[in-house]
Amino acid sequence: MNETVIRPIARFESDFPEKFGIPRQAGVVEALRGRVVFEPAWRSDDALRGIEGFSHLWLIWQFSENLREHYAPTVRPPRLGGNERVGVFATRSPFRPNALGLSCVRLLGLERTADRGTVLLVGGADLMDGTPIFDVKPYLPYADAHSEAKGGFAPDAGETLRVEIAPASLEKIPPDKREALRGVLENDPRPRYHGDGERVYAMSFAGLTVRFRVSEGTLCVTEVEETT
Amino acid sequence: MNETVIRPIARFESDFPEKFGIPRQAGVVEALRGRVVFEPAWRSDDALRGIEGFSHLWLIWQFSENLREHYAPTVRPPRLGGNERVGVFATRSPFRPNALGLSCVRLLGLERTADRGTVLLVGGADLMDGTPIFDVKPYLPYADAHSEAKGGFAPDAGETLRVEIAPASLEKIPPDKREALRGVLENDPRPRYHGDGERVYAMSFAGLTVRFRVSEGTLCVTEVEETT
Repeated sequence: MNETVIRPIARFESDFPEKFGIPRQAGVVEALRGRVVFEPAWRSDDALRGIEGFSHLWLIWQFSENLREHYAPTVRPPRLGGNERVGVFATRSPFRPNALGLSCVRLLGLERTADRGTVLLVGGADLMDGTPIFDVKPYLPYADAHSEAKGGFAPDAGETLRVEIAPASLEKIPPDKREALRGVLENDPRPRYHGDGERVYAMSFAGLTVRFRVSEGTLCVTEVEETT
Repeated sequence: MNETVIRPIARFESDFPEKFGIPRQAGVVEALRGRVVFEPAWRSDDALRGIEGFSHLWLIWQFSENLREHYAPTVRPPRLGGNERVGVFATRSPFRPNALGLSCVRLLGLERTADRGTVLLVGGADLMDGTPIFDVKPYLPYADAHSEAKGGFAPDAGETLRVEIAPASLEKIPPDKREALRGVLENDPRPRYHGDGERVYAMSFAGLTVRFRVSEGTLCVTEVEETT
């Protein structure tokens, strides 16, 4: 078993300071915005030459949060209600032998900055703020797009919730974050094994603490405040 | 720059003992057959439970051959004739900061063996024999299939060659390897910067040495013999 050492080439910048609320897969909430910020050693416009010709990119990254100490060959994916066990290689669960994540994101633009070189603006990512990124690759539709593929126990993105946000709460959300936040909430950020309609959940997003309850297919935002 | 140590969970078994001839991307030659053989520590039917519900898998693996000692921010992809420079993050070139490869393969079946546990039989892989594999993940069509994606300088698999194999040579190729070999040759295994119609190339495939010439869009197999 030969070991290999890999090093982050970039970090991800996103509106999720914590894991709770991050969509279960990339692309589920297209309105989410994030940035790939290269580490100083890999800041080079040459290394990005031609990347703007691709609409989508792959990110290979590290599950850096909530890792378990001991490996188990099965996991309980939220998509199966959180109580059915599936083999780890049949899931995209973070609890895997090498904690590598894989996400397809939309490339929205290149931003030239004074202090951080050229940064990639991307859409739809499911990465937490600060996530180490090991590789950026172009998405090649002729090799990567298989719309006919069979998706096992996760054939689609799953059911969505109806989301209600009272006007007073909505006002506290910056206009350019509203669509993304609504998308996150519609896709049900709860761990699936909780079903208590009275329970209040708190999610951190874009500097806000968003509190909500879920009952009978409707998610109701009860409070929005700036995170202190 | 925090380092991360990753370890192979499996090795790939393929008909390519060398890099020459391996298709430039997975899926280009669907008829290729290969196997994912798990390392003893990760041999567990539990870890594969439910995987048969997926038609395609992602492999994250190590470019273990032909690596350069020094990193360059640009590479010259074969698809651009081998003489135009593109940024490494705009390509799937092996010459990248972390030598990680990404391939989508078709899952054809699970083989229970006496001595190597359960092995995954896969189609279309672009991996050399012995390649270390770091992760196996299910392909999720709802998150991974973007047929509308823009593919930059590589929008399709590229032009194919007409392949001529004389009957005497064809006889030396095992029948169950013929379709795959033909597919490999049709997709032009040459490095693109050579254009000499007289040059004879030798490719190792499935225990055979296959010699061929290419001229005016036709690849002509000149000799097939068992590799000694």
